[in-house]
Amino acid sequence: GILERLDAGEIVIGDGGFVFALEKRGYVKAGPWTPEATVEHPEAVRQLHREFLRAGSNVLQTFTFYASEDKLENRGNYVAEKISCQKVNEAACDIAREVANEGDALVAGGVSQTPSYLSCKDKTEVKVVFRKQLEVFMKKNVDFLIAEYFEHVEEAVWAVEVLKESGKPVAATMCIGPEGDMHGISPGQCAVQLVKAGASIIGVNCHFDPETCLKTLKLMKEGLQAAKLKAHLMSQPLAFHTPDCGRQGFIDLPEFPFGLEPRIVTRWDIQNYARKAYDLGIRYIGGCCGFEPYHIRAIAEELAPERGFLPEASEKHGSWGESLSMHTKPWVRARARKEYWENLKPASGRPYCPSMSKPDGWGVTKGGKELMQQKEATSEQQLKELFQKQK
Amino acid sequence: GILERLDAGEIVIGDGGFVFALEKRGYVKAGPWTPEATVEHPEAVRQLHREFLRAGSNVLQTFTFYASEDKLENRGNYVAEKISCQKVNEAACDIAREVANEGDALVAGGVSQTPSYLSCKDKTEVKVVFRKQLEVFMKKNVDFLIAEYFEHVEEAVWAVEVLKESGKPVAATMCIGPEGDMHGISPGQCAVQLVKAGASIIGVNCHFDPETCLKTLKLMKEGLQAAKLKAHLMSQPLAFHTPDCGRQGFIDLPEFPFGLEPRIVTRWDIQNYARKAYDLGIRYIGGCCGFEPYHIRAIAEELAPERGFLPEASEKHGSWGESLSMHTKPWVRARARKEYWENLKPASGRPYCPSMSKPDGWGVTKGGKELMQQKEATSEQQLKELFQKQK
Amino acid sequence: GILERLDAGEIVIGDGGFVFALEKRGYVKAGPWTPEATVEHPEAVRQLHREFLRAGSNVLQTFTFYASEDKLENRGNYVAEKISCQKVNEAACDIAREVANEGDALVAGGVSQTPSYLSCKDKTEVKVVFRKQLEVFMKKNVDFLIAEYFEHVEEAVWAVEVLKESGKPVAATMCIGPEGDMHGISPGQCAVQLVKAGASIIGVNCHFDPETCLKTLKLMKEGLQAAKLKAHLMSQPLAFHTPDCGRQGFIDLPEFPFGLEPRIVTRWDIQNYARKAYDLGIRYIGGCCGFEPYHIRAIAEELAPERGFLPEASEKHGSWGESLSMHTKPWVRARARKEYWENLKPASGRPYCPSMSKPDGWGVTKGGKELMQQKEATSEQQLKELFQKQK
Amino acid sequence: GILERLDAGEIVIGDGGFVFALEKRGYVKAGPWTPEATVEHPEAVRQLHREFLRAGSNVLQTFTFYASEDKLENRGNYVAEKISCQKVNEAACDIAREVANEGDALVAGGVSQTPSYLSCKDKTEVKVVFRKQLEVFMKKNVDFLIAEYFEHVEEAVWAVEVLKESGKPVAATMCIGPEGDMHGISPGQCAVQLVKAGASIIGVNCHFDPETCLKTLKLMKEGLQAAKLKAHLMSQPLAFHTPDCGRQGFIDLPEFPFGLEPRIVTRWDIQNYARKAYDLGIRYIGGCCGFEPYHIRAIAEELAPERGFLPEASEKHGSWGESLSMHTKPWVRARARKEYWENLKPASGRPYCPSMSKPDGWGVTKGGKELMQQKEATSEQQLKELFQKQK
Repeated sequence: GILERLDAGEIVIGDGGFVFALEKRGYVKAGPWTPEATVEHPEAVRQLHREFLRAGSNVLQTFTFYASEDKLENRGNYVAEKISCQKVNEAACDIAREVANEGDALVAGGVSQTPSYLSCKDKTEVKVVFRKQLEVFMKKNVDFLIAEYFEHVEEAVWAVEVLKESGKPVAATMCIGPEGDMHGISPGQCAVQLVKAGASIIGVNCHFDPETCLKTLKLMKEGLQAAKLKAHLMSQPLAFHTPDCGRQGFIDLPEFPFGLEPRIVTRWDIQNYARKAYDLGIRYIGGCCGFEPYHIRAIAEELAPERGFLPEASEKHGSWGESLSMHTKPWVRARARKEYWENLKPASGRPYCPSMSKPDGWGVTKGGKELMQQKEATSEQQLKELFQKQK
Repeated sequence: GILERLDAGEIVIGDGGFVFALEKRGYVKAGPWTPEATVEHPEAVRQLHREFLRAGSNVLQTFTFYASEDKLENRGNYVAEKISCQKVNEAACDIAREVANEGDALVAGGVSQTPSYLSCKDKTEVKVVFRKQLEVFMKKNVDFLIAEYFEHVEEAVWAVEVLKESGKPVAATMCIGPEGDMHGISPGQCAVQLVKAGASIIGVNCHFDPETCLKTLKLMKEGLQAAKLKAHLMSQPLAFHTPDCGRQGFIDLPEFPFGLEPRIVTRWDIQNYARKAYDLGIRYIGGCCGFEPYHIRAIAEELAPERGFLPEASEKHGSWGESLSMHTKPWVRARARKEYWENLKPASGRPYCPSMSKPDGWGVTKGGKELMQQKEATSEQQLKELFQKQK
Repeated sequence: GILERLDAGEIVIGDGGFVFALEKRGYVKAGPWTPEATVEHPEAVRQLHREFLRAGSNVLQTFTFYASEDKLENRGNYVAEKISCQKVNEAACDIAREVANEGDALVAGGVSQTPSYLSCKDKTEVKVVFRKQLEVFMKKNVDFLIAEYFEHVEEAVWAVEVLKESGKPVAATMCIGPEGDMHGISPGQCAVQLVKAGASIIGVNCHFDPETCLKTLKLMKEGLQAAKLKAHLMSQPLAFHTPDCGRQGFIDLPEFPFGLEPRIVTRWDIQNYARKAYDLGIRYIGGCCGFEPYHIRAIAEELAPERGFLPEASEKHGSWGESLSMHTKPWVRARARKEYWENLKPASGRPYCPSMSKPDGWGVTKGGKELMQQKEATSEQQLKELFQKQK
Repeated sequence: GILERLDAGEIVIGDGGFVFALEKRGYVKAGPWTPEATVEHPEAVRQLHREFLRAGSNVLQTFTFYASEDKLENRGNYVAEKISCQKVNEAACDIAREVANEGDALVAGGVSQTPSYLSCKDKTEVKVVFRKQLEVFMKKNVDFLIAEYFEHVEEAVWAVEVLKESGKPVAATMCIGPEGDMHGISPGQCAVQLVKAGASIIGVNCHFDPETCLKTLKLMKEGLQAAKLKAHLMSQPLAFHTPDCGRQGFIDLPEFPFGLEPRIVTRWDIQNYARKAYDLGIRYIGGCCGFEPYHIRAIAEELAPERGFLPEASEKHGSWGESLSMHTKPWVRARARKEYWENLKPASGRPYCPSMSKPDGWGVTKGGKELMQQKEATSEQQLKELFQKQK
């Protein structure tokens, strides 16, 4: 089990980001980001799980991001044939388990924030939404549960409370930065509330780059210490550099989601992240949007001395560029060493582009007066109306 | 057949780069870049073919890059169990055909430059190497043949001559820039020699970014016109921005191959490329290293008005960000339009990095005196010695 | 007098940075930064005063930066013929007064931080140093006094106490950022202590860019409000962009002092600064290192609507590029408007350079172990020894 | 005399750019760029001459740029009291001679391109314009003559022919890049025509950065060699980095003239330029727009080994940052060495700005259709009309 491993001091390597990877492969639509591919194109989902397993992941998360019933209905209307929430979740469990059995990985069932909460439904209603996904996870007997990608700790706590009903270990990660959740609750306070609600593993995922996530986790750790609480720490950041983003993370960057390429982190950035995460006491180390299999492999390679082994995919990778040592050109051979890659400041090849952006947001969008008067629209009806207006 | 399509004025969309994509997925080793994955992990190769097919590729190239016998022997010594050249090539053909049959794509058998040529073997010896791969392609009955990734037109001509023995249509692309091949032969002259040797389709692939490749192709086109020769034009550039590279392309950039992330082109860059390639008269438009399925989809979407249809994968993609039009945040909805993405200058998120690099090379590597006295080493023996020395 | 003007709600425009401007003109040595030019080359000092006066300065500061006796002795040993502290200060007063009389400007005598304080001399000893300069200022009857460029509020308070002995109005500015002084005292606390010591005008100068200085001033203002104290606010920032510097400001940036060119702010940056300073309630608005006469003119032009007049030097300047409206090229004429220059993101022309640097400092210098064991050396003896060692 | 010095193999150091330096000091209006300051503010012009002399200039050019009668009339209408062309030129000569006598410098009278030529007046008419300035130069007995800042070799040749009437040595520099003059005449051809017209010294000034100017000069040198002609070479580039500009140089960059700050070169860039210029055989080495006194000093310091002495202003400058060797902070002391400054890639402190711009021009300005239909306007009448329209 996950807790046995963590309690024993083992490093647990998470997996990477499915929605971004599968968007690039052609199976997920940016915007809705819903996971109906588990039913429509199981082979694509299976292959990505396999690549993460091979790269060193110890946990395969079911591809159930945004697979709550309200979200699938809300956004799912572009899917030709309506696919039920249950089907999507069941298929996700089956695929994850099938691949997990090819190795020694655990399967984690995951829930994430819901449109119901954002449209101000109450605790009971929101919990019903989580419970529907949990039923599938119980039926399919996942190994543990993750509540992830929550912008409000209140909703995250509700999710943890529901998931705890299962008796399985629960992890909870929020997509917040050092400034805290969208209601202004600090990372330390968020951590305390999640642990009190029953989470055994807490941390952050998505929205911010590795460096920022580690800052947030440091604050969470300090919050727990101050409250004399204990929990395992978990980190699953973006694989994009986002030094310039504001409180709501990369969503507000002008490049989101179709111009983020120049921000993609290198494998060396990830090795640096893995080392720092480890040094901070984090033992569940993975990634979120932008993390490709080779990024996960970089975590496994950086921590190989501590773990005592390399992942399977390292058969196709020499540490620190060693595979270049037989290149025909001497100056390429000269790159086959750690100091080279550690110190490289990679050029963007884009001299007409800046290195940082100003995030969009309430009040910062140009000509944004009209926009500022709009409220966030979340119900299907509201969105349809907006869509019509914009046409 | 490929020529029927091109002669009829159709646009033919190529596929993307296998070695880079599969390196990131954990199945190809950077440095050697050999394709033994066709035997070791056919499911991974199959999945990538499928993604390109789904993204709009009309041609699936067999994953036989660097699959000549001399190359596999030369670099293949890291493969636990020696896999024969014949097996690698046969598996590549089988997988490509299997996926091609799922749609309406052609299968192209491909050969590329050889260590034999670089170590100064003669025409007869080099031709033997190409002929061995061709035998497999004939047995497996590929639809047409591509000689690609040649730095010297002399070797490319030899390859075309061998491939022509088959009676099948032959395409030939060189990895050269506007300065011409490594012996100083201009793009125009290269084009003329390739057509005279029997290639029906000529152009460039790899080593340079889309913009540079189009410059080279313009010179090739002018060379053919001056010589009153006719051929179809083909372009398969990198998906990396390389305004700063020298004669030998991205290999010499300090970021090659493990720090190229900030150079990755966006889908909008590719739409721009596809349009310009089309306007230049190029009708076989694809990609090379760095091209992921979504880049190929961008070609298909840009040229959808001319072709009259969208690729299958566009079911998961709204043109020009349209899928954001129902996002909950108004400033993200504001990104759901062509002008936005066309004009975006994406930030790198890397304020400590430059935007261009000086390429390495003979004479430009720091402390490079010793290196400059070395010759390029290509034989297995030489490489082993070098490897030992560096240890 | 200065207080009459400020009390009446007038905007007072300061002058720019003498040591940097005169270093570029060939009269000040970077490193020591001492002002013996007042004696050696009075015409150069006079001309610079004149340019600031013409650009709109209401105050001419005597060029007495680092003109304390201990500093001149400490660093002055490179001056061929020893020039006494008294002579340097007297000449500075004479030149400033001469030029001030050409217009309607006030003369301010200035003192700055001393080597005596840094080498741990006590309050009495340090005050003796300030008093020596003050005697000259009294003899030459300057209009008011400025204690500027203090890293430690303790020393600044001592300086204010000495200057108050004169009965003249005293301004005090520190070269600190939002993190406070070198002993960790917050900007708000610094402000309170300076006002309590007798300063009528308080603020910041040097070390940080305009944006950062305004942040610090905001904290000072809040500190005073919380303490129910009143004082006029004064801002004299760098004319260099320094978003990347640490607690000790631009000294620690790798570009200091001979590679700062790409950081120089434009006149439009200064107009933006002047407006924001005004909006924050600052009424003594000037500049420090890097400020050239045209930067001061930009303050005067931005605030011309409030003040009701333009400075003399505006006869050679059209607001917001208006002087381009008769250029022969239409696209240059198109730059003759406010929106153009306000929105321009000026390129550096340096694609091989980054946009930010990591500041040096204790512990951050590469290979800096040895350096870290060194203490800061401030006595003449220590410096001589170091100098010998390095040779 | 200038030719005696050059013939003897001496290095002659030119001066820097007056219009840009005096614009920043408040005495020249950008746009017109006319030098009426010689009459209005002689002390400012005198001081700048003095600084260049002190920095090492062997030649003081009269500040007569754009001081032809047609130009002064054309643009001079903003000057309150009309100042005659003769007065401006006479005052310029007097000031230059006065300062030259303070040292050992030569005085060069300069003419530059005229509105008459641009508005298609004929050879006779244009020559009349040059002759008027020449009369003053003869009366004031300057040491030699410079025809500089010509975009068309035809006009430059006319200028040289007029200046040769004086019997004094004539230098001629064009503001062209490697692509040649505005009529498409190559640098090599330009050089040949200038020498045939009687110029003893030829080269380039303004419009392009040092690196580009040296490329152009290399082509000029090769042109002369091919034609078996001999002349001394002269280089007076911008002190701005302009790798991104087109055929007409920095005028077309979006940053011209009020946003060029981030492009300003460092003293180390200039040392690099001086060395390369020397190695290329150039012996008259100076600067143009953007060159401040410290840039000229950098030329003199770089070539001190060849010349055997340092300029006067080096009393206030330690070579290669040596003056930092007694700084109190060890990491600043660590900057007191050549390798440090030579290798520094200075950051811009502007992460929201790009590193290169696209030049404006016919057809490239956005929304430029209307602009493209306009012709260049040069007569006073045309400009007045335009000015009215834009209001």
